[in-house]
Amino acid sequence: MTLTVGLDIGGSKILGVLVDGDGAVVAEHLAMTPRGDVRAVEDALIAVVDHLRAATDRPVSALGVGAAGLVDVRRGVVLHSAHLPWRDEPLRARLAERTGLAVTLDNDATAAAWAEQRHGAGAGAPDMLFVALGTGIGGAIFSGGRLVRGRTGLAGEFGHVQVVPDGRPCPCGLRGCWERYCSGTALAESTMPEVAHWLAVGLGGLVATFDPDVVVLGGGLGVPETGLLTHAETHLRDHLTGGAHRPAPRLVYAALGPRAGALGAAGLAATGH
Amino acid sequence: MTLTVGLDIGGSKILGVLVDGDGAVVAEHLAMTPRGDVRAVEDALIAVVDHLRAATDRPVSALGVGAAGLVDVRRGVVLHSAHLPWRDEPLRARLAERTGLAVTLDNDATAAAWAEQRHGAGAGAPDMLFVALGTGIGGAIFSGGRLVRGRTGLAGEFGHVQVVPDGRPCPCGLRGCWERYCSGTALAESTMPEVAHWLAVGLGGLVATFDPDVVVLGGGLGVPETGLLTHAETHLRDHLTGGAHRPAPRLVYAALGPRAGALGAAGLAATGH
Repeated sequence: MTLTVGLDIGGSKILGVLVDGDGAVVAEHLAMTPRGDVRAVEDALIAVVDHLRAATDRPVSALGVGAAGLVDVRRGVVLHSAHLPWRDEPLRARLAERTGLAVTLDNDATAAAWAEQRHGAGAGAPDMLFVALGTGIGGAIFSGGRLVRGRTGLAGEFGHVQVVPDGRPCPCGLRGCWERYCSGTALAESTMPEVAHWLAVGLGGLVATFDPDVVVLGGGLGVPETGLLTHAETHLRDHLTGGAHRPAPRLVYAALGPRAGALGAAGLAATGH
Repeated sequence: MTLTVGLDIGGSKILGVLVDGDGAVVAEHLAMTPRGDVRAVEDALIAVVDHLRAATDRPVSALGVGAAGLVDVRRGVVLHSAHLPWRDEPLRARLAERTGLAVTLDNDATAAAWAEQRHGAGAGAPDMLFVALGTGIGGAIFSGGRLVRGRTGLAGEFGHVQVVPDGRPCPCGLRGCWERYCSGTALAESTMPEVAHWLAVGLGGLVATFDPDVVVLGGGLGVPETGLLTHAETHLRDHLTGGAHRPAPRLVYAALGPRAGALGAAGLAATGH
């Protein structure tokens, strides 16, 4: 049976996993993301793939990549990344050329959401909203068991929904973006209760918009120790439009930990959707 | 060939259409929504259906309803309506009992969006966002050619996303809801440029969230005479996260006019999805 490589590429770390057809991890490798140009990052990715391939005698058939940035899924291009040097970078074609593997390319939050929806905190929920709180906010949406990708695969960028008119400036060029008030970065300017408040406000809007079965909170802050969902649950019960007439979704922490992105990238490559 | 009745039930008017298998309108009837209790509204609906059935000798097989309110599509229940007396009202079962027809029940904006996506301004666009500006904001989302309904069919209530912290009070019980700043009602407190600004801000968030092919603006203000999309287009080009690296969707006015809801309700009843 063939194996699949999954890569989760963030601004500081690259995590690679080698998984079998059941999604079980055969090998794993972590590397630091080099501070350098496009070529340096690409070389680091290839080194992780080579390391994983060297760990097995079995054939590797595909490579799935989840990358931190705006990913045009149809063309396999990273349009823009805040923490990596990519600008309209044809990453899928570059990695296919250098590895000889079939490559799929997705946004990192999309990959993590896929893993949580299939094997993690959202398993069995056709309508799942995934919100990853890290440096910024990553997101993804499942409707009827399928990813809501949008025209080019850019759906789920709700970290840049404006929540405060003329609010805090965001590196994306806008002001008042949700992730300026609700993320690891926001904690530099806010207390944890303030971040919890903004999480609840943002989730209220997303729940009104999507009516999900379950909201999965992932990313570095998406762990029970933060207590973030306790406040959000109270807020949703009291402040969701439609009030008592409207059922509220379950709010849960992600279950797969920091490997979710790499596992999801491998899964997307193995299954194609 | 059998015919289908479509009803669009608003706070002030009830529009009924009788359509054939090609979606062509065979008969049409407009009535005022009575100011009264649940029974009075129900009697008015039955009168419209009877009127349309009397207009033909051909068999009528199904009744599709689009209702202004929070609709639990799975159970066929209007959970709550701002302008109609329904509270947890089992409207689908009531109308099925009184008409003897197979009945489908949807939110009115969902029905209008369906018609626009199949036969109107969004025809051929798999990923379509529908925003209806009337007394409030109605909405619906298509992803991959399918309606994003959510768990109970309540998706698309983005009129109640908070856009101003501690903002204008909304009859829904929240404050700062988008529709307090961007709707016909908002024009009582705002200039048209202010409404256009808030339309652009809200669409910016929704486009970041969904990455649609096309945004269709419907409802009473969704007509070219308002000029609302001119401002929104400029704003999206300059203020969408990802900037020049990200393709912007087409923004268009709805094409089917005030009959979209009734046509869509009939279409949903005839096709089942």
